[in-house]
Amino acid sequence: MSKKYVYMFHEGNANMKELLGGKGANLAEMTGLGLPVPRGFTVTTEACTRYYEDGEKIAGDILDEIKAMLAQLEKDIGKTFGDPKNPLLVSVRSGSRASMPGMMDTILNLGLNDEVVDGLSALTSNERFAYDSYRRFIQMFSDVVMGIEKKLFEDALSAAKASKGVKFDTDLDASDLKGVVSRYKEIYESHRGESFPQDPQMQLIESVKAVFRSWNNERAVSYRRLNDIPSDWGTAVNVQEMVYGNMGEDSGTGVAFTRDPGTGDKVYEPGTDNKTIYGEFLMNAQGEDVVAGIRTPMPLVRLKEKNEAAYSQLLGYADTLEKHYRDMQDMEFTIEKGKLHMLQTRNGKRTAQAAVKIAVELVGEGMLGEDDALLKIDPKQLDALLHPVFEPKALKAVEPIAKGLDASPGAATGKVYFDAKDAVNAHEAGEKHVLLVRAETSPEDIDGMNVASGILTSRGGKTSHAAVVGRQMGKCCVVGCNDITIDEKGKAFTDKSGKRYSEGDWISLDGTSGKVYDGMLPTVEPELDEDFFKVMAWADKRRKLRVRTNADKPEEAAVAIKYGAEGIGLCRTEHMFFHEERIARMREMIVAETEEQRRRALNEMLPMQREDFEGIFEAMDGLPVTIRLLDPPLHEFLPKEDADIEALAKELGISDAKLRAHIHGLDEINPMLGNRGCRLAVMYPEIAEMQTRAIIEAAVNVTRRGVKVLPEIMIPLVSEVLELKYVKETVKETADKVLAESGMAVEYMIGTMIEIPRAALTADQIAKEAEFFSFGTNDLTQMAYGLSRDDASKILDVYYKKKIFESDPTSRIDVRGVGRLVEIACELGRKARPGIKLGICGEHGGDPSSVEFCHGVGLDYVSCSPFRVPIARLAAAQAALKDKS
Amino acid sequence: MSKKYVYMFHEGNANMKELLGGKGANLAEMTGLGLPVPRGFTVTTEACTRYYEDGEKIAGDILDEIKAMLAQLEKDIGKTFGDPKNPLLVSVRSGSRASMPGMMDTILNLGLNDEVVDGLSALTSNERFAYDSYRRFIQMFSDVVMGIEKKLFEDALSAAKASKGVKFDTDLDASDLKGVVSRYKEIYESHRGESFPQDPQMQLIESVKAVFRSWNNERAVSYRRLNDIPSDWGTAVNVQEMVYGNMGEDSGTGVAFTRDPGTGDKVYEPGTDNKTIYGEFLMNAQGEDVVAGIRTPMPLVRLKEKNEAAYSQLLGYADTLEKHYRDMQDMEFTIEKGKLHMLQTRNGKRTAQAAVKIAVELVGEGMLGEDDALLKIDPKQLDALLHPVFEPKALKAVEPIAKGLDASPGAATGKVYFDAKDAVNAHEAGEKHVLLVRAETSPEDIDGMNVASGILTSRGGKTSHAAVVGRQMGKCCVVGCNDITIDEKGKAFTDKSGKRYSEGDWISLDGTSGKVYDGMLPTVEPELDEDFFKVMAWADKRRKLRVRTNADKPEEAAVAIKYGAEGIGLCRTEHMFFHEERIARMREMIVAETEEQRRRALNEMLPMQREDFEGIFEAMDGLPVTIRLLDPPLHEFLPKEDADIEALAKELGISDAKLRAHIHGLDEINPMLGNRGCRLAVMYPEIAEMQTRAIIEAAVNVTRRGVKVLPEIMIPLVSEVLELKYVKETVKETADKVLAESGMAVEYMIGTMIEIPRAALTADQIAKEAEFFSFGTNDLTQMAYGLSRDDASKILDVYYKKKIFESDPTSRIDVRGVGRLVEIACELGRKARPGIKLGICGEHGGDPSSVEFCHGVGLDYVSCSPFRVPIARLAAAQAALKDKS
Repeated sequence: MSKKYVYMFHEGNANMKELLGGKGANLAEMTGLGLPVPRGFTVTTEACTRYYEDGEKIAGDILDEIKAMLAQLEKDIGKTFGDPKNPLLVSVRSGSRASMPGMMDTILNLGLNDEVVDGLSALTSNERFAYDSYRRFIQMFSDVVMGIEKKLFEDALSAAKASKGVKFDTDLDASDLKGVVSRYKEIYESHRGESFPQDPQMQLIESVKAVFRSWNNERAVSYRRLNDIPSDWGTAVNVQEMVYGNMGEDSGTGVAFTRDPGTGDKVYEPGTDNKTIYGEFLMNAQGEDVVAGIRTPMPLVRLKEKNEAAYSQLLGYADTLEKHYRDMQDMEFTIEKGKLHMLQTRNGKRTAQAAVKIAVELVGEGMLGEDDALLKIDPKQLDALLHPVFEPKALKAVEPIAKGLDASPGAATGKVYFDAKDAVNAHEAGEKHVLLVRAETSPEDIDGMNVASGILTSRGGKTSHAAVVGRQMGKCCVVGCNDITIDEKGKAFTDKSGKRYSEGDWISLDGTSGKVYDGMLPTVEPELDEDFFKVMAWADKRRKLRVRTNADKPEEAAVAIKYGAEGIGLCRTEHMFFHEERIARMREMIVAETEEQRRRALNEMLPMQREDFEGIFEAMDGLPVTIRLLDPPLHEFLPKEDADIEALAKELGISDAKLRAHIHGLDEINPMLGNRGCRLAVMYPEIAEMQTRAIIEAAVNVTRRGVKVLPEIMIPLVSEVLELKYVKETVKETADKVLAESGMAVEYMIGTMIEIPRAALTADQIAKEAEFFSFGTNDLTQMAYGLSRDDASKILDVYYKKKIFESDPTSRIDVRGVGRLVEIACELGRKARPGIKLGICGEHGGDPSSVEFCHGVGLDYVSCSPFRVPIARLAAAQAALKDKS
Repeated sequence: MSKKYVYMFHEGNANMKELLGGKGANLAEMTGLGLPVPRGFTVTTEACTRYYEDGEKIAGDILDEIKAMLAQLEKDIGKTFGDPKNPLLVSVRSGSRASMPGMMDTILNLGLNDEVVDGLSALTSNERFAYDSYRRFIQMFSDVVMGIEKKLFEDALSAAKASKGVKFDTDLDASDLKGVVSRYKEIYESHRGESFPQDPQMQLIESVKAVFRSWNNERAVSYRRLNDIPSDWGTAVNVQEMVYGNMGEDSGTGVAFTRDPGTGDKVYEPGTDNKTIYGEFLMNAQGEDVVAGIRTPMPLVRLKEKNEAAYSQLLGYADTLEKHYRDMQDMEFTIEKGKLHMLQTRNGKRTAQAAVKIAVELVGEGMLGEDDALLKIDPKQLDALLHPVFEPKALKAVEPIAKGLDASPGAATGKVYFDAKDAVNAHEAGEKHVLLVRAETSPEDIDGMNVASGILTSRGGKTSHAAVVGRQMGKCCVVGCNDITIDEKGKAFTDKSGKRYSEGDWISLDGTSGKVYDGMLPTVEPELDEDFFKVMAWADKRRKLRVRTNADKPEEAAVAIKYGAEGIGLCRTEHMFFHEERIARMREMIVAETEEQRRRALNEMLPMQREDFEGIFEAMDGLPVTIRLLDPPLHEFLPKEDADIEALAKELGISDAKLRAHIHGLDEINPMLGNRGCRLAVMYPEIAEMQTRAIIEAAVNVTRRGVKVLPEIMIPLVSEVLELKYVKETVKETADKVLAESGMAVEYMIGTMIEIPRAALTADQIAKEAEFFSFGTNDLTQMAYGLSRDDASKILDVYYKKKIFESDPTSRIDVRGVGRLVEIACELGRKARPGIKLGICGEHGGDPSSVEFCHGVGLDYVSCSPFRVPIARLAAAQAALKDKS
């Protein structure tokens, strides 16, 4: 049997989303439930895929099927396409497997032409309505199907209003609209060289093609990238009989949610216990009018006054649909001359808070089990629950001055500073609202970032230094904001309108949307409620993966514990060295010319490191702590600016020239592939010795104070087992010496990061020396792709546009390539050391799809920044649930 | 049964090299053949390995075995350790599985003490000899075993000579030497705080340990790295009864080869048909005197005058050994009071020319089959055969400034350096023409010799260190050049006319004639003889791998064809753009701001590229040619110096600032992981279009002229199949368009490089789009290791010293890591596209061990630089032969 490409609504159901798209499947389902759905059919996603396979053509067999289905529709409804006496008018709407609201195109009122418009006018006794519908159709068809600029039509409409001296479209009467229609047809003709098409069948086929094409328009591609929707899914097309909300005051249209999508609360008629639903409607309007916001819609509860029958019918349908789908529904409806029609239902988008509340309440109401409730919550959304946000009302009233990448969520408002030191000074002078604005940040900015409530950079991607550190610190952060031009010397930036913001000026940053606003916006602090903890408890019962955190300081560790972290998976020791007093010792160590000088500087660093570790061990009280030995290339610790170099030379008592030569000697052509990670410990074992001593002495000290401690010493960037063996011997000898000195027995482990392809490929050898592996998938991804995240930004936009990459390859674990390396390493590692502890500590540990992968390969834990711990817990539970089913 | 760690010579044989080392196994074999070998025993390489495992200690059981074997030796010989009346004296020599001449330590005359020396004196009636032997022993033991600086002893000896007013050691009489011995013992005592050890057993055990330790001295480690000898093999230790070549004028010592190791020729007594052997000897001397080159030895044929019996006995043994080993032998012998003793035999090191000639002649003489003959030739050596010689005309026009011994053939011209470190530094600073000039070389000079293109010494014979190592490395080498006077401190030498040459001055060395010339002489390609082609023909019959070349120009292609290349495996199109006129167009293209400007510049480049390809296609006439699309980051084509930037800005008619901004815009943090390879073609498809057009138009043009052509268009640096697919479409569309325009049918292929780990891991997807894979193991290695070869140098020395790397990881295919990626890619690629063409085009294609790997994974071809083609052919044949056996 040949494939079926077109389905009548009554032939489908909600399980056919892959084929019919979400909208089509739900229209079919509602039809099956007996709800009043205007009749129609769906052209499948497979027809879309074939359209592209066939070189952007609709094959003859599919055309035939569409035409046959149209004939059937005409018969069922008793109306005919193009028949002025009894015309069939349809809408043509996209509908993909996943919801992509507003991303693709829609054509309404299709079937109108010069004859039919008059027929419609006669049938409805409403000439104004008929011509208003026709002008809307001409504009949509011209814009969406034929690519004629929308503005031309808008201008023509404005001209008509101006010449009549009125302000609103509604002030134009039938005769005005006739004039507009005729002007629209002229515009069409002048652009296409032919008159506006009068054949409804041709209108339909071209519109179907246009919807198919809109699957690949820029905003759709971009939306898919942001939402992990594969580009090979394609969209379905729904062709549905038109119903009109704009046929007069007994008509209307609206949107409704079964619960409040902002809070998750059930909705009641004001001052009563009468349940109602959430939503808005407009009488005498089409759907687009509600969305466009030209007239202010009314709260749904007021529909009761306008049409009580329709109101209670709608409430009934809402209840039916919520129970049927076992989830909060988002519905569209139209009332045509008093009669209610259901145009769409789907599981409603909701805020994080609402998502949690609804899940808990649906379980409470017996509608869902805990497993299903957990699967309903998007883990990524939880982020929003843990950060302050702007007051929604305040946000609505302002336009952003710039937009960048949403690197770390939350809202921050404050005064801008363009230098870490200035930020620190302002903070120390008592300024509570400090924002750090830089072209890009480097580890030297760490103190400034630490005191800032938000960070804005004009360069860099979501895995740039600012982004990574921002997330780790839980600070709102917007990066890669090309809209602003920073004048670091002049301590100012200019927004896209040319407005200049100088040091101390107020702006507001929304790290969740990537938007930047002028001035001070009010924020609201989130509160974690009971529902949140309930959901997390359900998740914890189900997940197999343990969840740790990446934390370098006791305060971060404390936050992570609050969010449920079960240990530290990555404590980066280098961040401890960027504080003013410490960096001096670090620099002294780096420019040392003899081992002795180096050891002297290291000895001064020892007590500071020890103190850091004591703080962290105490915060984690008994939970495992993985500490990574010094990792970054040493040049990161040295100054770059002339003035700083001179100051440092003076401080160190060496000549400028000598210091410059030293800094120059650390230059690397490809620092990512240079002297860092365990290579530092091979070159200067005394660094690893000092760090090990600090770790073990700290462990001994806190053990004496009755704190349990499980240090796991991690050796980074191993590519060859002998590197690991060499450094491990240094670590082990030092650790055992410290323990012998102390007369105490403290357990510790020594393991390694797997972040270089060769380490994964030779993991059997490496596992013989390593008690644990922690996958550093950030570096592993960059090396597996041969693409540095610092340099990728220049090519990524083109790669998205040409659909080579659907998203930044560093944003989640690339299962096929990087994931394969992880699998190989797990397999080889377990073979060589059964039961080897396996974890991941790259930023991917907080990405739900990556967490699912980690569950799949059977890692013991994932580790992520403190604020992502709840996300990882939920994602891990979902992975376990999916695995079970 | 417990393991046996010590073997008497008569217990072993030549097949036990792994256990007894080369020297030990051959001493055992000679003993078995009944040759006059001083008796002794070998402590095995396993004892060495255990020494290291046990923390640098000789275990009790091994000590017991050594002592038991010593007792047996005393019994066999009838002499006793430490017995003044009948003392046993022994040599203690290293001997590893592979020959490492001069790299490890030796102790002679062991068993002497204050009493024994007088016994020896009485027994030999030669007090001078006895004390000379004792002072040599004290010096060696102190230096080698106890680490007391050799110079202290040399100074004491010089002082003795000075106080007596004589020049040579031989001018010191017994009483002088007694004084020297007593001074030596004082030096020992003052350094060790105890008197010189009198117990021969203790002397022996400490010496064995010292030899074990010398396995890991710096020069041995460095030698192993250069010669691919694994560090876990360990060395055996040979303990052998001393025989003395310095017992008077009826004693002597020498080195002999069964054929001329420089040419491979059989050797005849001058002016006769009497066969003799090649070599040198010194009467009244110990072996070290021959090697050290202090006295100039006599040609071996003159031994006939000195001791005809020993001479003809030696010739007989030489013949026996060559037939027995079926290879040219390198022997050491000593004549003690007229009696010949054989101290060593081994397959002789030889020049490439000699290796080829000997292989052919041994086959001709029926001694070897072709298979075995092929396996006797070290492929790496062939390099030397292909190296240039001086232009005969240029040579005629100049007089040599000096003449020495022709130790290793070839021609080299370059700047002189007088110290190995200076040579290495110059090389690292980019100097390509480095000559090392030394009075004599020692193993410590090994790194300097390695970077030099030629070596010149003022002292030493053809078997001196410089000569042996020079031949092995295939470096032009002139030794024993008494005509020059070297001032090593002043870093200069004076020729016989008195002209002074300082560091950095140019000279030219002819290793074939032994002549030295002032200044820079032009070189020409060598001519290959019949023997070479015979050996290559044998190789070609046996190999499975095809051998292609990396060539960018018709001339290179022509050389490669002469050397047997069967196609071009890598034609780098970018090299074509560095010529003066072309780079201007290239730069115009790069700084273009619109596609149109870019296309205009590309259009001007098109005819040039087309002409390049026509030349190459014609040179390769019918052989396949793989052409890689533009690969390097664009900034490589732009100037870096201020003056050049200004000039270019003027030429392009844009402002300095604009050009600088453009150059700056191309800056990358990690260029190796940035915008290059196919990423360029994704960003600017018009570049790939122009290149494809040039390739296909060239193919059409030469086809019209009757030349067969097989272009394979290669897309580099693919990490994701969609990249390949995108660029492939551009290439295919363009190619098909050009062919349609021409009305011709020319076959072409489109394939890709596998040089990024992810490409290897996703090779199944990639193979669906690629008709061939070419492994770019240079980049693959760097990414697999996370180590850029540009930055590795800073860590490599430490990595060698700490034995983490045995050699530069980029020098050959790392089978375990990089090789695994290649295997994975081959397997996935073949699964997705059975019969896919597989090759390698990194420099590894010319490295024998890598060729063996490529054979093992079943590649279709390797590709390497033209001069390495013969190496690859032979290595491929050897791989096939090893595979068979």
